[in-house]
Amino acid sequence: MAAASLSTLSPPERGFPDTEYQHRCGAIQANMRSAGIDVLWLSTEADIRYVSGFFTLFWQSPTRPWYLLIPLSGEPVAIIPAIGAECMQRTWVKDIRTWSSPNPTDEGITLLTDAIVELAGPNATIGVPMGCETYVRSPMNDIEQIKTVLADANWCDATDCIRPVRHIKSELEATKLRYICAVTSLAFSRVPDVIHSGMTEVEVFRAFRIACLEAGADEAAYLVGAATQNGYADIISPPGSHELTRGDILILDTGCTFDGYFADFDRNFAVGSVDAATASAHQRVWDATEAGLALIKPGVTCAELCATMQQIMVPGNATEGSSDVGRLGHGLGIQLTETPSIAAFDHTPMQAGMVMTLEPGYSYADGKMMVHEENLIVTETGYELLSTRAPRDIPVIA
Amino acid sequence: MAAASLSTLSPPERGFPDTEYQHRCGAIQANMRSAGIDVLWLSTEADIRYVSGFFTLFWQSPTRPWYLLIPLSGEPVAIIPAIGAECMQRTWVKDIRTWSSPNPTDEGITLLTDAIVELAGPNATIGVPMGCETYVRSPMNDIEQIKTVLADANWCDATDCIRPVRHIKSELEATKLRYICAVTSLAFSRVPDVIHSGMTEVEVFRAFRIACLEAGADEAAYLVGAATQNGYADIISPPGSHELTRGDILILDTGCTFDGYFADFDRNFAVGSVDAATASAHQRVWDATEAGLALIKPGVTCAELCATMQQIMVPGNATEGSSDVGRLGHGLGIQLTETPSIAAFDHTPMQAGMVMTLEPGYSYADGKMMVHEENLIVTETGYELLSTRAPRDIPVIA
Repeated sequence: MAAASLSTLSPPERGFPDTEYQHRCGAIQANMRSAGIDVLWLSTEADIRYVSGFFTLFWQSPTRPWYLLIPLSGEPVAIIPAIGAECMQRTWVKDIRTWSSPNPTDEGITLLTDAIVELAGPNATIGVPMGCETYVRSPMNDIEQIKTVLADANWCDATDCIRPVRHIKSELEATKLRYICAVTSLAFSRVPDVIHSGMTEVEVFRAFRIACLEAGADEAAYLVGAATQNGYADIISPPGSHELTRGDILILDTGCTFDGYFADFDRNFAVGSVDAATASAHQRVWDATEAGLALIKPGVTCAELCATMQQIMVPGNATEGSSDVGRLGHGLGIQLTETPSIAAFDHTPMQAGMVMTLEPGYSYADGKMMVHEENLIVTETGYELLSTRAPRDIPVIA
Repeated sequence: MAAASLSTLSPPERGFPDTEYQHRCGAIQANMRSAGIDVLWLSTEADIRYVSGFFTLFWQSPTRPWYLLIPLSGEPVAIIPAIGAECMQRTWVKDIRTWSSPNPTDEGITLLTDAIVELAGPNATIGVPMGCETYVRSPMNDIEQIKTVLADANWCDATDCIRPVRHIKSELEATKLRYICAVTSLAFSRVPDVIHSGMTEVEVFRAFRIACLEAGADEAAYLVGAATQNGYADIISPPGSHELTRGDILILDTGCTFDGYFADFDRNFAVGSVDAATASAHQRVWDATEAGLALIKPGVTCAELCATMQQIMVPGNATEGSSDVGRLGHGLGIQLTETPSIAAFDHTPMQAGMVMTLEPGYSYADGKMMVHEENLIVTETGYELLSTRAPRDIPVIA
């Protein structure tokens, strides 16, 4: 029956104790103090969930804004649509202010600006994450109106108040990430059973999504991939009507979740047989990952990891090399992709508790690419692999 | 086997011919002309997909910005990370400019501002959707830098250049929406087979997600619901460990997709038996929907629909009534929720081709709520129901 789980994995407890959120909030407030920020204004799903525990898929509706304010001391204040009050009341946040939304004439603006003045005064320095990989989830007209109402306030980039705190996962967070990576590994191990030649890409994606759910994932919302002869050139397109054929190289790259925490890794499969160039490219990205893993421990920087992995991907000819996807891995947690980036520009040092992907991409055979990915958590002395290590030789399925 | 589809429904063709996009782009350009806008800057998944056909789940990664410019005449220009070039090349967009992303020192800003100047000059009036239910998917620091580089440009709210065009679905769009609503109806029809008392909420959600995939959905990414004794008080929380018990009222509200088009409706089920207050509340929201349906035809406004449905939800006592979720329905298409809103503040008239949800919510029994939803397309003379109409009496499952 469809509901039965095929999984022998035992899921960890959902949610976190209030102390986890109090610790996160305190760490952010300490950074606010250093930065001279009086109040932090958060507007995105990940930031608000991280601090409050407010967890709902309702964010997929773009209609309503949701806000959380963190004062310099004391507890956060939620300013949210009334439809979310009951869900927010289950969190540790006690000060919840709501309006009937949608309301195009005042979409929470009065509540928000009043609360900012109440918490930090009209001359407050207001922190907002403004840096790379951020955005403010408000209509631009509303942002302008908020700035007009708070004409005497100062605005300040608060990216570094929250980001470094989110980088380091607690043991409870690690437990969730360990589980969803094990679930995803289990789903990938079933690929030879549920995917075979003759299936269309659409059928392949559907079968794999079901395998992820059966293995214990809450969702398999993110799934991209490709299947083309002797290698693929694009890994972000949706599935089409192409039928898996002998000689195709299939990549499935998924971001399954458990309790809002993401696994993010891919696996490659050859259908029936594998061409020599692809076989070699798979070994090369596997070796690049191996070199990255060998290096990982606290203190090693993203740039160093990138250089080490890229060195393995220097081929003996001019037409191959590291592919232009901008980085060779990234942070992982409550978002499919988080900072830092395994890239030459990022000098963030590894710290125990960081959860990272290593994701080397290699260009070969005149436009083909090979991408390989593993997930790990940095430990005091090195790393713990969260995904079950892929084999060096690309697996062949029927 | 997991991959097999239980569906007898035949999916329509994926994608659209270039003419569909040319028509959309032309309609937007006509609105730009009326509004005095020289170039339109789009940054969100839905807007960019609507105009270009660029379709990827990769948007779930928040790392990279993606931009599309629409000049007053001529074809759109895509300014996107290199990782998306291959996927964009499959669309009708020919002018594709890429950078290696992430790049924190210039995340597409130079390419974007150069293209704006090239298309419309340094004194251009630049349109950006700034109104309700919009946001700009760029870091605030980048938006400021773009405004600084384009110091002589004028900025203008372009919400009404694109929104009214998106409101009216073409026949090809209607075909996709008709299909995904039929798929979702099929999945709901299987609830008595796949969901029963004793299952935890997590198991219920997993079983229903699999049922949606088996019925033919590409994704069942959006699924919220609740199951509590004699009615629920919250419909946006994630599932927990509660086991379905006799007397529970279960609501499942899903946003399944096919080829990027959403169904969005819910169904209520009583487990074992139903209490009188819940039975009556279900009839009431069903009757409210029926009254809305009876009214729907071109020219009738959202506010009129809202008033008619609310009239049915006036109870004989002071503690019940229309629930405070802000509206009684909304537009539907490439987003789970779109404008317009079935609300007193929204005077948008119905037009043939609009796809809408009717979604009355009723508060009763001291804090319980009952929400009911159907999807429809407005026709020249009335409406066509896309969801299979729910029964007036809440179904009882084992």
